[in-house]
Amino acid sequence: MSEPTPTCQIALMPSGRRGSVPAGTTLLEAARLLGVEIESICGGRQTCGKCQILIEEGHFPKHNLTSALAHLSPIDEREAAYRQLHDIGARRLACACEVLGDVLITVPEESQARKQIISKAATDRVIDVQPAVRQVYVEVRAAELDEVGGQGDWERVQEALAQQWHLNNVAIDPLLLPTLQPALKQGKHTLTLTLWQGRDSTGGSQAAEGPGVGARPANSSEVLRIQPGYAEGVYGLAVDVGSTTVVAHLCDLRTGAVLATEATMNPQVRFGEDLMSRVSYAMLQPQGVARMHRAIIGALNDLARKATADVGLTPEDVLDMVLVGNPVMHHLLLGIDPVELGGAPFALAIAAPIDMKARDLGLKLNTAARVHVLPNIAGHVGADNLAVQLAEAPHQQDEMMLVIDVGTNAEIVLGNREQVLCASSPTGPAFEGAQITHGQRAAPGAIERVRIDPTTLEPRHKVIGHDEWIDSVTAITASARATGICGSGIIEVVAELFTAGIIGADGRFSEAATERSPRVRFKGRTGEYVLVDSTHTATSQEIVVTQNDVRNIQLAKAALYAGAKLLMRHKGIEKVDRIVLAGAFGLHIDPHYAMILGLIPDCELSKVIAVGNAAGDGARIALLNREQRQEAARLALWVEHIQTAVDPNFQTEFVAALGLPNAVDAFPHLEGLLPAPVTGSPTRRSQRRHVRTQAESPIPG
Amino acid sequence: MSEPTPTCQIALMPSGRRGSVPAGTTLLEAARLLGVEIESICGGRQTCGKCQILIEEGHFPKHNLTSALAHLSPIDEREAAYRQLHDIGARRLACACEVLGDVLITVPEESQARKQIISKAATDRVIDVQPAVRQVYVEVRAAELDEVGGQGDWERVQEALAQQWHLNNVAIDPLLLPTLQPALKQGKHTLTLTLWQGRDSTGGSQAAEGPGVGARPANSSEVLRIQPGYAEGVYGLAVDVGSTTVVAHLCDLRTGAVLATEATMNPQVRFGEDLMSRVSYAMLQPQGVARMHRAIIGALNDLARKATADVGLTPEDVLDMVLVGNPVMHHLLLGIDPVELGGAPFALAIAAPIDMKARDLGLKLNTAARVHVLPNIAGHVGADNLAVQLAEAPHQQDEMMLVIDVGTNAEIVLGNREQVLCASSPTGPAFEGAQITHGQRAAPGAIERVRIDPTTLEPRHKVIGHDEWIDSVTAITASARATGICGSGIIEVVAELFTAGIIGADGRFSEAATERSPRVRFKGRTGEYVLVDSTHTATSQEIVVTQNDVRNIQLAKAALYAGAKLLMRHKGIEKVDRIVLAGAFGLHIDPHYAMILGLIPDCELSKVIAVGNAAGDGARIALLNREQRQEAARLALWVEHIQTAVDPNFQTEFVAALGLPNAVDAFPHLEGLLPAPVTGSPTRRSQRRHVRTQAESPIPG
Repeated sequence: MSEPTPTCQIALMPSGRRGSVPAGTTLLEAARLLGVEIESICGGRQTCGKCQILIEEGHFPKHNLTSALAHLSPIDEREAAYRQLHDIGARRLACACEVLGDVLITVPEESQARKQIISKAATDRVIDVQPAVRQVYVEVRAAELDEVGGQGDWERVQEALAQQWHLNNVAIDPLLLPTLQPALKQGKHTLTLTLWQGRDSTGGSQAAEGPGVGARPANSSEVLRIQPGYAEGVYGLAVDVGSTTVVAHLCDLRTGAVLATEATMNPQVRFGEDLMSRVSYAMLQPQGVARMHRAIIGALNDLARKATADVGLTPEDVLDMVLVGNPVMHHLLLGIDPVELGGAPFALAIAAPIDMKARDLGLKLNTAARVHVLPNIAGHVGADNLAVQLAEAPHQQDEMMLVIDVGTNAEIVLGNREQVLCASSPTGPAFEGAQITHGQRAAPGAIERVRIDPTTLEPRHKVIGHDEWIDSVTAITASARATGICGSGIIEVVAELFTAGIIGADGRFSEAATERSPRVRFKGRTGEYVLVDSTHTATSQEIVVTQNDVRNIQLAKAALYAGAKLLMRHKGIEKVDRIVLAGAFGLHIDPHYAMILGLIPDCELSKVIAVGNAAGDGARIALLNREQRQEAARLALWVEHIQTAVDPNFQTEFVAALGLPNAVDAFPHLEGLLPAPVTGSPTRRSQRRHVRTQAESPIPG
Repeated sequence: MSEPTPTCQIALMPSGRRGSVPAGTTLLEAARLLGVEIESICGGRQTCGKCQILIEEGHFPKHNLTSALAHLSPIDEREAAYRQLHDIGARRLACACEVLGDVLITVPEESQARKQIISKAATDRVIDVQPAVRQVYVEVRAAELDEVGGQGDWERVQEALAQQWHLNNVAIDPLLLPTLQPALKQGKHTLTLTLWQGRDSTGGSQAAEGPGVGARPANSSEVLRIQPGYAEGVYGLAVDVGSTTVVAHLCDLRTGAVLATEATMNPQVRFGEDLMSRVSYAMLQPQGVARMHRAIIGALNDLARKATADVGLTPEDVLDMVLVGNPVMHHLLLGIDPVELGGAPFALAIAAPIDMKARDLGLKLNTAARVHVLPNIAGHVGADNLAVQLAEAPHQQDEMMLVIDVGTNAEIVLGNREQVLCASSPTGPAFEGAQITHGQRAAPGAIERVRIDPTTLEPRHKVIGHDEWIDSVTAITASARATGICGSGIIEVVAELFTAGIIGADGRFSEAATERSPRVRFKGRTGEYVLVDSTHTATSQEIVVTQNDVRNIQLAKAALYAGAKLLMRHKGIEKVDRIVLAGAFGLHIDPHYAMILGLIPDCELSKVIAVGNAAGDGARIALLNREQRQEAARLALWVEHIQTAVDPNFQTEFVAALGLPNAVDAFPHLEGLLPAPVTGSPTRRSQRRHVRTQAESPIPG
């Protein structure tokens, strides 16, 4: 009998894991055995240098560095070659060190395989970087003349993947086959393969297509890119396709870092500003769907080009993409006519997540790049709502959390780990400055802050790009002239008008208050309030707030509030523990004013948090972590969605929420403007298509 | 406790299966339970009428028809509606009949689910029609307003497939999603789905891509086409991509019938007549591979257009395609540079079967149509050889079978169920009329038969399109004028020249024989034989056979014979039981002359059979039966391939086979023309690229 192999003690910092391994094990393997994943692209071939570690002590509790070296195999020829090209100081390559005695090792953060990044989300959640696409380096056996049958270079690559990475049944995108032999030649039989590793949990969906040998496993892999020799760099795009704005984050899929963010207006806006008008365009124009589909694909191609150019890459470097959007955006992205979403029963063409080739959508990324579209929940509650849930994760909280993502429509999520409810509410684009006489998007020159003196009723404002308050007598430079009012400015002006008594609880201009305004800034019931004199505007025209503007804000905020209250009523609660305001709008508004205006339900002000683009963050999470894609698919089936459009309680809440602040039964005279419950009868539906007041629109628009 | 359900006896003809089933079972289901598959597209919804059966007796052994009806449920409203539209006489729909007593049923051939067709192959094999693509009819639940989360129309289609067809985890090509809701509307919530049902045995390769729910099964299905209501008709193309000729069979995938066959010249011929010259073109022209790839894809699109137009269909109706070809054709089809196939070790880029979307190859069939490319065996032995094996199935025979498919290169297969050997041999295009002074392809006007009077040495011939023998004094019409000599004519003329003593066993014109020709049809060693006088040719030029023509035929037939002998030598046998001559060439030549010339080894003449386009038949078998695709993948690994190019025995056999008939050591003076064994050294390889005599070409060309 042979001698039993001696074992050595290893401890790994900062995890603190320790244990014993047989002498002769490499540090890379030893760490894996003890549950610590050290990064490696080359799989232990001393090529990538990703597995650098620091040797702290030869054997613990105490020793010096020299003796530590004696406890590891010395630097061999191959490691020496690597060190000659790269200065790694006192560090060693974990794959090159055989353990010969007890050692204490530190794994620096950059060598830890499971990178973690902090999401910008309200909850400061940590994202495990575990993308669907990664790179592996292989050394491929050269062909021989007396090869047995059925062996080509691809089969020898499969052999290398099985032997060197324990990856079986790897498939290849057939369009890559022309690149295989040239890469083998150039790389002298070494390759870096970019692999997509889908999972089939919610299934049917994510298996790779292409040739391979062996039974299909639960997890399947597909080669997406073949590069000669050792190569590094794999990138993805996370895109939130909003009705109005499309935002793309270019991410390094190895580190999780956001390398560039680019935004553009959704070019579909020219076919209709809100969702309902795009549905109408699709119905009325024979080429409408195709045009809107091409428009958004074109915008995505532009974003990919710009975001990659920002950091010296090209769209060819993008291998994975995650897309989120509301159901109408989702359908138009896929070229599906959204007409069924325009009327009861609001049938989605598909709810399930979609995995497909980017090229099949006309996306000009890498030839083999993949696209993952997050699932929809229901006809009005789409992948964007789910993305918000991924980002804010109410399903992982004990607190009762209300998430409101204000866009052209509002995504509303309420719940905790017990249950999550969600809905979309038709706020319309007023909060984004549309449907407001002098409304505009947030941009330099837009009024974002407003104060009205309660005595003189004189206003002052701040414009984006200038820190100073400006009133009618302030001397300003041309660039400080106001161009219009953006969303947060509108909230403040309406709240200030109310606080100053210029408008009443019903939103109407007060004739009585007119007398208190020595400079006659407004004229009673039919009038409008002059917010900025013509001397202080870019257009040399007064910027005013009209009765109709106030009405539009009332309708929008009522829809928002009613949606939130509807979910709370379903849940049977009166109060929430925390409110998360998502979206650019949420970042800019003052929670104080949101509360005055009655946008959000009652909550401790310190518990009202703004988080920015949560849908985009959710898309980024799904891009960086393939398990979160599974989680999204699970959530789509688990969460409960509430149909705002057909719930009579929504109408009640909506009416009740029109006042300033919300007051039930305060506005009997407004009732004529309010939507009746949708019955689904053809007459009602066709009416709805023609008489489209904003609040009556059956889809959030 | 409830009464036990009574059981009824059923017997099904012509299979003779019998057994008992619970009363109330439909005949369709009862037959399935007893192992008899009755066809049904609508799945028992009395829509498709495919399950018609005849009731023979009410209960057996004996009864009359009236009592038979009492043993089955009467015609209900739905069946009556079907009968009003279709006259089905005394037949019943099996799905509409519940079994109430003992019955004897006949299942007519057209109602049997497993259609069988007789292959044209030598062995009259029966092909089970079991294609990868089939149609199913479903009735889909309409969306409801209070649908739970994650339910779209696609999910309701999945639900219908699971409930009505026991098909789970069906995926959909995402590009079809836009067609789903319009089809549901038009079909009033009924659809006919065309499904691809791949199998993952040789795996990694055949899984569908697209969304779905549930764990991935071993067999996966993908929806390829959505049609409203009930629809019928699913078609496929089987294509043999030859170096010279491309042949496409359009098949009805339900019945297995060949609806149309179209052939065209491979447009790559303009880039090089044989394989080696195409490899050279790829090496020398930067755009060479792309040009040849586009050329063949264009030809396939033309064939698809023509074949479908022949029967009033369009390429949009084609959902599946099987392609076979030799390794160079295979690689160019996929856009792969064949340069590695041009020199040792002749490395294939890929051997495995390939499943992909037709659109990814630029094929203009149905948007979602699939392509299956049969596997390669080795660098010189491709998918076409495997197709020949599928068609002739030596691996299922007890007899020792030699299959020779003569094209621009010869595919040679030898074996029986114990072992199968295969090889390709570089015959060159001489047998197809190329490299012959007056050679031409088989077409009207081509000389196909030749006789030479052994006394006068005067010739007579037959041309294609005319039954009469023609000699120099025959009065003929213009259309009977000879245009050239086709493959079978060349075999005969060389054999007759030899038999008449005009050429010797070494292939040289005999000076002695000149004297025996009173009309001086040839002139000794340097001369040529005038086969047709200028008065009898279409060009008014003599048609002659030159010394060089004879030499080319000698080289080609020696390569063919040497390949066959090489396999026999490997197998250790001197004689085969049966010879199958495949390819158009095999159909036209007279086995007698093939034997005189020494094209084929010794065999009883009655056991030499011509079978036509075996590679095309093999492609058709793989198109019609998905299990045969698995079989091909299994064979690719199981069969033993012999490298003719590097086997020194091949050279020996080749030299030995140059004589008429084959005689070893008869041609020492020809040795300078013979190929040396390939060593793989760069010098030899670059030489080979420049000095390309036909026999020296390392790949069959």
